[in-house]
Amino acid sequence: MEAEDSWQEQTTTTGPHAGKSWWAWGRVAELRDLLQELPGTFGLSSELEQLRPPAVREVGQLLPKPRIELGSLPADVRSYCTDSDFERLFHSRGRDVTDVIASLHSKLGPIHDFVAYPSSEAEVAAMLHICSQRRIAVVPFGGGSSVVGGVEPVSADDGFAGCVALDLAMMNQVLEFDETSQCVRVQAGIYGPALEDILRQRGLTLRYFPQSFEFSTVGGWIATKGGGHFATGPTHIDDLVQSVRVVSPNGTTETRRVPASGAGPSELRLYAGSEGTLGVITEAWLKVRARPQTRASATVVFQAEGDADAAFELGAHCVRDMSQTGLQPANLRLVAGPEVVRSAGLAEPERKLLATAAVLLIGFEGQPGAASVINSQLSYLLAMAQQRGGLVVSQKLAEEVSQKQESTGERSGIAGSWGKGFMRGGYHMSAACLFPSVLVNTLETACTWASFPALHRAVLHAARTAMKRECGVQGEVTCRFTHVYPDGPAPYYTFVVLGLATTPGADSRVKMWQNIKRDVMQAIMEHGGTSTHHHAVGKLHLPQYRAERGALFGPTLSAMKAAHDSAGIMNPRLLEPSIRVPSKM
Amino acid sequence: MEAEDSWQEQTTTTGPHAGKSWWAWGRVAELRDLLQELPGTFGLSSELEQLRPPAVREVGQLLPKPRIELGSLPADVRSYCTDSDFERLFHSRGRDVTDVIASLHSKLGPIHDFVAYPSSEAEVAAMLHICSQRRIAVVPFGGGSSVVGGVEPVSADDGFAGCVALDLAMMNQVLEFDETSQCVRVQAGIYGPALEDILRQRGLTLRYFPQSFEFSTVGGWIATKGGGHFATGPTHIDDLVQSVRVVSPNGTTETRRVPASGAGPSELRLYAGSEGTLGVITEAWLKVRARPQTRASATVVFQAEGDADAAFELGAHCVRDMSQTGLQPANLRLVAGPEVVRSAGLAEPERKLLATAAVLLIGFEGQPGAASVINSQLSYLLAMAQQRGGLVVSQKLAEEVSQKQESTGERSGIAGSWGKGFMRGGYHMSAACLFPSVLVNTLETACTWASFPALHRAVLHAARTAMKRECGVQGEVTCRFTHVYPDGPAPYYTFVVLGLATTPGADSRVKMWQNIKRDVMQAIMEHGGTSTHHHAVGKLHLPQYRAERGALFGPTLSAMKAAHDSAGIMNPRLLEPSIRVPSKM
Repeated sequence: MEAEDSWQEQTTTTGPHAGKSWWAWGRVAELRDLLQELPGTFGLSSELEQLRPPAVREVGQLLPKPRIELGSLPADVRSYCTDSDFERLFHSRGRDVTDVIASLHSKLGPIHDFVAYPSSEAEVAAMLHICSQRRIAVVPFGGGSSVVGGVEPVSADDGFAGCVALDLAMMNQVLEFDETSQCVRVQAGIYGPALEDILRQRGLTLRYFPQSFEFSTVGGWIATKGGGHFATGPTHIDDLVQSVRVVSPNGTTETRRVPASGAGPSELRLYAGSEGTLGVITEAWLKVRARPQTRASATVVFQAEGDADAAFELGAHCVRDMSQTGLQPANLRLVAGPEVVRSAGLAEPERKLLATAAVLLIGFEGQPGAASVINSQLSYLLAMAQQRGGLVVSQKLAEEVSQKQESTGERSGIAGSWGKGFMRGGYHMSAACLFPSVLVNTLETACTWASFPALHRAVLHAARTAMKRECGVQGEVTCRFTHVYPDGPAPYYTFVVLGLATTPGADSRVKMWQNIKRDVMQAIMEHGGTSTHHHAVGKLHLPQYRAERGALFGPTLSAMKAAHDSAGIMNPRLLEPSIRVPSKM
Repeated sequence: MEAEDSWQEQTTTTGPHAGKSWWAWGRVAELRDLLQELPGTFGLSSELEQLRPPAVREVGQLLPKPRIELGSLPADVRSYCTDSDFERLFHSRGRDVTDVIASLHSKLGPIHDFVAYPSSEAEVAAMLHICSQRRIAVVPFGGGSSVVGGVEPVSADDGFAGCVALDLAMMNQVLEFDETSQCVRVQAGIYGPALEDILRQRGLTLRYFPQSFEFSTVGGWIATKGGGHFATGPTHIDDLVQSVRVVSPNGTTETRRVPASGAGPSELRLYAGSEGTLGVITEAWLKVRARPQTRASATVVFQAEGDADAAFELGAHCVRDMSQTGLQPANLRLVAGPEVVRSAGLAEPERKLLATAAVLLIGFEGQPGAASVINSQLSYLLAMAQQRGGLVVSQKLAEEVSQKQESTGERSGIAGSWGKGFMRGGYHMSAACLFPSVLVNTLETACTWASFPALHRAVLHAARTAMKRECGVQGEVTCRFTHVYPDGPAPYYTFVVLGLATTPGADSRVKMWQNIKRDVMQAIMEHGGTSTHHHAVGKLHLPQYRAERGALFGPTLSAMKAAHDSAGIMNPRLLEPSIRVPSKM
């Protein structure tokens, strides 16, 4: 009972985030359950090695006094604002490993002065109006799953009178269906599972499943230009949005709802990736589709005489050819063997087979009656794989998934053949932070096929060198392609360091990771990669983003911002912070 | 010999546009040949009914004196500038029917003061620098195929000291191949056929074939956000560009060359569709692919008891379902039967069969060995067509096209089963203008599937009413879908009026069309369509574009422009002309 209480003290019982951890990914109950098995995963001898997460009331004592008194707000606005300890803590950080470790050690960064929960566009506009007048910085808040510092407030010395997290959780309705055009109009604060639950009742799906699916919202997806877990075809949120509505300090704007237009630069793609700097995305028309009911899949293994790195390059070459066929498999995911072993928890003899291999997961899906289409597509790619030295270790021909099977199976196995672990990745990452001898994190990029081999080797080299230097022990870095395009892959790297020599404090473990990431990002940027494929820029990738974008895009972002946000209050530290200096009004 | 001379007098023998007509689409020699057959097409009794196109020297006498003397330019800049009559005439108008008719009647609009042919980015930058200093408006010029007034100069009373057409024709090289990533770096001034000739030598293709293919350039495609002729999948130029370089008055900028990125709003999609208002696109990395070598196709006919409009709606319903399967046929083009009859010049009994039908052309293509994939895809769609009342009248199973066949067949039959006429559409349109009793034009939009039926009926009604009212005879309006998306089609309307009662002069035929188009555009905008699917905004669609875009996008365009073009000289009348007021510097 006492242990149970300690978990309950890390959350709240009220509001839209009841049950969620103030410091970790997701819900405390699921994190608690996961912790039963985690020590085994990492080969730790005892649960006693775990850190004890601080209760809200403990860290609450460390919180700075809000700079904005709720009493100073007009009564109608005040009615949807709160400055409770849990709300301020929950909203002030994303869920990157560095965020989680710092929070676990009660090290707080800048803290929002209050949190607003508007229920309508009028309430959003009212809040932006007040904040413009009073120079209060506004950070639009979706699910808070950022791993790049995207929801952090400005610092106390940043020239603002205060900072508010504008949480869209109350604007979470599906407003309108257009089943003829396979579109649905939703409020931006709706979370992934709630949206899919409603779509499922009509046999539809957005088919957008980022790893953050359970704890992220439509508005957050669009603002950060997120990527779903499908490997090819329309899988980025900007491909799945038909139009958006945005409430900005300078007014409300809406893009026209058409399937395509040759009229002017893309307005939609201006708001996708704007990271809250232009306004608050309040609504979107999303392009949905009939739920796929026919699926086929196969697994191919590549070996290169016991050399795991060489096997991955062999597999990469094959995937490149497949990506250039014009086919768009739902799954086309090359995963380094050691990563499969670790994430799937395999035993011998698979363990030994895969430790030096690369594994390619291929999947196709379609509508009822599409079995022969799907099977011929799969056969075409498997013939290609065999020609390139791959061993087809399993193959499942197309079969129709009944609506019943599909609807019960979807929640627990949404990522299909890639396994249940995917959607629980956030929990694993947060849980790992509880063990001071463990350091785990990920990062991703995208590059051309021509640059990939050199980029990949440089990343592996930089990572291994830096992990050894920073951590004193040899860590493991593995790669998988989360997405592939005809012109290049999106490699996703996972870093695992076990058995850190001493028991590092928050600062040292955070510093270790920052130094490792710095070196790896340098390798990526030098070899033509992008600073982020689907994690967004946030505060974390700002230096790389500045180097990466075109010479005129910084001033362009500032100019676009001024057209939306004259007072410069919208997420003022993101994308182009150097230009915006808020002035007293 | 005399007649031959009169054709030669409509063109020039020097420079990159030697042999092209000053007033019509394309080359005078091809137009002359086409005119042999055209009277028959329109049922005209005699070639004598043709207007006589004015010679360059005739209209040259009407040209205003250039406001900018070439002698006033620095010698190094002057060396790539010209103010010859042909060059000024050729560059001052696009090739819409209204342009052609006015030119044929020697009615000139605003005229460029001179034309610049830079050979390098440095020369582009030097010209922009001088123009910024001297308040000379700059109109970037690709192939000049605009049908929306996209290349016209500013008027003499527009507050500028003059206007120059900046023609990129000398910057027409393929600079670099990355065959691993299937990408190619090209200068923006390269024309479609030259690019495809070079790609073909390596077995590659951009697979981008707009109707203007022969007379348009990579830079023009990107600046106007053009659409190729494939019906589904990546067919818009913005889907086929990996990165661009832009020389602006405020500096040169380049987007990063990666297959995808989650970093910030899309820079690329800011320049795509910018219509020369931000700067001059000088280079692009294009995404190419292996030339397809396996093709299958079929033709399906829909009938509705002799009602052509009802047959088209029946076909539209079927195409909608096909567009939502996830398959991406190269061709999926629904064409009103009367249009097929006219463009294919069919005789009985096909003529009678199709006059009240709608015809659906389906095509798939793929790489060697993909025959079974392609056949299964085609079968899947044909089964769907039959279920929805379509009659499969022909079907050609997948066969491999040899490299030899393919390379000889490509030039004359690039649009595959859609017929040779497509690529000669521009000639037909210009040629028709020669006959005062004929009025022909087209326009296009895109809308959701839900809005299509009402939009379509409103367009047909508005068009028929307006044609009768304006022309005094009953014209014909037909529809085809040039592109289809899961959320809606892009209907393309063709208007043909024959036997105009009197012989109208330039002003009256232009006015007739403007009034017809005004009514049809109003129907489109009221029913949720876009002002343009792939013809761009230009001057022609500016009123609709202003109404269509979001409330904050006008100021945003102005702000983006200011960040690129402080002096406001770049194509200053397009996209957001109301804000830019050039100031003396």
